[in-house]
Amino acid sequence: MIERSTVGVTAPQGYRASGVHCGIRNHKPDLALVVSDVPAAAAAVYTRNVVMAAPLLYDRAVLERTGGRARAIVVNSGVANACTGEQGDRAAEWMAVETARLLGVPADEVLVGSTGVIGAQLPLDRLAEGLPLAVERLSVEGGPAAARAILTTDTHIKETVQWVEGPEGTVTLGGMAKGSGMIHPDLATTLAFVTTDAAVPVDRLQPMLRRAADRSFNRITVDGDTSTNDMIVVLANGAAEVGVGPSGEAGFEAALTAVLTFLAREVARDGEGATRLITVRVTGAVTEADALAVARTISSSPLVKTAIHGADANWGRVVAAAGRSGVAVRGERMRLSLGGIEVLAPGYASDFSEGEATHRLSQNEVEIHLDLGLGEAEAVTWTCDLTSRYIDINAGYRT
Amino acid sequence: MIERSTVGVTAPQGYRASGVHCGIRNHKPDLALVVSDVPAAAAAVYTRNVVMAAPLLYDRAVLERTGGRARAIVVNSGVANACTGEQGDRAAEWMAVETARLLGVPADEVLVGSTGVIGAQLPLDRLAEGLPLAVERLSVEGGPAAARAILTTDTHIKETVQWVEGPEGTVTLGGMAKGSGMIHPDLATTLAFVTTDAAVPVDRLQPMLRRAADRSFNRITVDGDTSTNDMIVVLANGAAEVGVGPSGEAGFEAALTAVLTFLAREVARDGEGATRLITVRVTGAVTEADALAVARTISSSPLVKTAIHGADANWGRVVAAAGRSGVAVRGERMRLSLGGIEVLAPGYASDFSEGEATHRLSQNEVEIHLDLGLGEAEAVTWTCDLTSRYIDINAGYRT
Repeated sequence: MIERSTVGVTAPQGYRASGVHCGIRNHKPDLALVVSDVPAAAAAVYTRNVVMAAPLLYDRAVLERTGGRARAIVVNSGVANACTGEQGDRAAEWMAVETARLLGVPADEVLVGSTGVIGAQLPLDRLAEGLPLAVERLSVEGGPAAARAILTTDTHIKETVQWVEGPEGTVTLGGMAKGSGMIHPDLATTLAFVTTDAAVPVDRLQPMLRRAADRSFNRITVDGDTSTNDMIVVLANGAAEVGVGPSGEAGFEAALTAVLTFLAREVARDGEGATRLITVRVTGAVTEADALAVARTISSSPLVKTAIHGADANWGRVVAAAGRSGVAVRGERMRLSLGGIEVLAPGYASDFSEGEATHRLSQNEVEIHLDLGLGEAEAVTWTCDLTSRYIDINAGYRT
Repeated sequence: MIERSTVGVTAPQGYRASGVHCGIRNHKPDLALVVSDVPAAAAAVYTRNVVMAAPLLYDRAVLERTGGRARAIVVNSGVANACTGEQGDRAAEWMAVETARLLGVPADEVLVGSTGVIGAQLPLDRLAEGLPLAVERLSVEGGPAAARAILTTDTHIKETVQWVEGPEGTVTLGGMAKGSGMIHPDLATTLAFVTTDAAVPVDRLQPMLRRAADRSFNRITVDGDTSTNDMIVVLANGAAEVGVGPSGEAGFEAALTAVLTFLAREVARDGEGATRLITVRVTGAVTEADALAVARTISSSPLVKTAIHGADANWGRVVAAAGRSGVAVRGERMRLSLGGIEVLAPGYASDFSEGEATHRLSQNEVEIHLDLGLGEAEAVTWTCDLTSRYIDINAGYRT
């Protein structure tokens, strides 16, 4: 398979990456490395699960110490290094320090990430074998290999690129992410890594990341579970020699939001066992917070998700989910479209072709559009259908 | 099948019941009637879903008007009469008034309930045929038939009986309930009906019901969805000529709680597609509210529920669920047992026989016991495993 170097985390200037197999997982790439040629401004958001995995605790402490500077991110899949106690803390540190030694950079310029089974210890012997290989394989074509090595139950790699044209020139953003269970907004969900060759000071980058994550990864759900290992990291190395000043910030933040939104949608689309990406659009709310609460409740409803899986225009489940969202909705004001077909009008009027609805709901992408009929605010979230395959995957994931 | 009249809602003195097929559902009983010989004190709790079904709105208004007095409850399955607008409101009222006419009792002494598909209108012509039959079939042996007629996707009837011995004599409580999807605590979940021949004034009965529901039906979850039709009604007709005075209230409330807990556990056990009843016991919390929040989050986790389905001692998922509960837990303090086997000790120490754990987790009932190691408070909730059958049922329920 030939993949272009113009995609993913090596699309911006001054980044190399690799993905190798070191033996944590069976026959699958399990170790990813992304390296900037020079130290980069580094911003990060973490899971809100109070049981936080060792690599996140390590990264948070390192970024506090350095004031938000990093050059490399090393990530393993297969073992989450969560709930692993002091041994796990030492393993995360060792992974960073050993990678830094091999790269010849200061130890505190390497961040670490892990994803996989909770409670298992990292096999340091395998990492010790794999890390030199990962360093050796670093290249500007390595983005897709890194994107592959961070996956767990995902069925495809998730990467994207965005360009921002500004008065000073063009900057590039690249991103990769992984899913695909324990996904729920509470948080920065899942693992996602974004690189850019823009020069952005970290005190501007961090709030931009926070806002962009809130509009993207914080608006997807697969199963309502929030992982111990979720993290998004952005590196801005300035290699394009194009600064993002106050006038360019809006454009840069829009591009960052686009990168994260693309990745978040891909994570939802590839949710464990999923066959359809579901976009939930709630309009006509009094406030955006209300719209978001309703959209999130609909996105989280297993009954809505199974109905969409069955291509069944079971609009009552959408209305019922809205009703338990905590928002003072009025059922008789609602207007609902499924896959572009209006199935409910105000006053509980419902008259549509079941056959046509089934056809529309059988597509790979389905929009649920609920107008609450109460105001002007709106919000969008993404989720996937719930299938038997989700059960199969998770009834036997660890063993 | 021969069933004793000593079970269910006709076990207390002075009640008759019936369950018949009137044609709302295909080839299944779909109309239940429970009648007290005399007007009874009536207490009720309702779903907290703000989209409330027509029969609940009707009952709430009637009970406010009468000050909590009723003689009969008529319930159909197959159609929820929710999201049905004014036509649905009129149908609920018609169902009560017509039943009262056939019984020869005042209209405002009949309560109504419905369960089934949301958004469909009640077929009044079929009810008009079925109601006379339901009245004709009323008998003291009719409890199990009524319990059967209120079911939807349930696989077995749910009924129970409790006796309370007091200084004045013995009173009996009988109960029936139905599940088995859209079950989540937020609320009085699902439909449950309790009869008693005790004499309890409604101003004492209502708070007892509220507390008992909070300890039983508000502690189960099947899928996190809260129905539009959930309701629990208690009738106390005094036929035993035994009053429940202040000294007997604790015993009566304990019996009421036992009835509702039994029924709630049966609803969880018979959750859609379920093969195992899961009891989640959280101890060592600082407050009971903390313990309950952690227990509810574990009960709601699809990853925990699928792991138990797979008989997989995947303890990390339990710890991760506790971590996202909103409670300030400390992973390294936790002690966890699954099916009676300790799989995690404080300091993330984990050493157990996978084979033995798999054996224990393959039973019909499984206890998850998480000790938070932080205090003395505890709470218990119930749920079921999550299986492919849940998906099959709900991807095609409406059609």
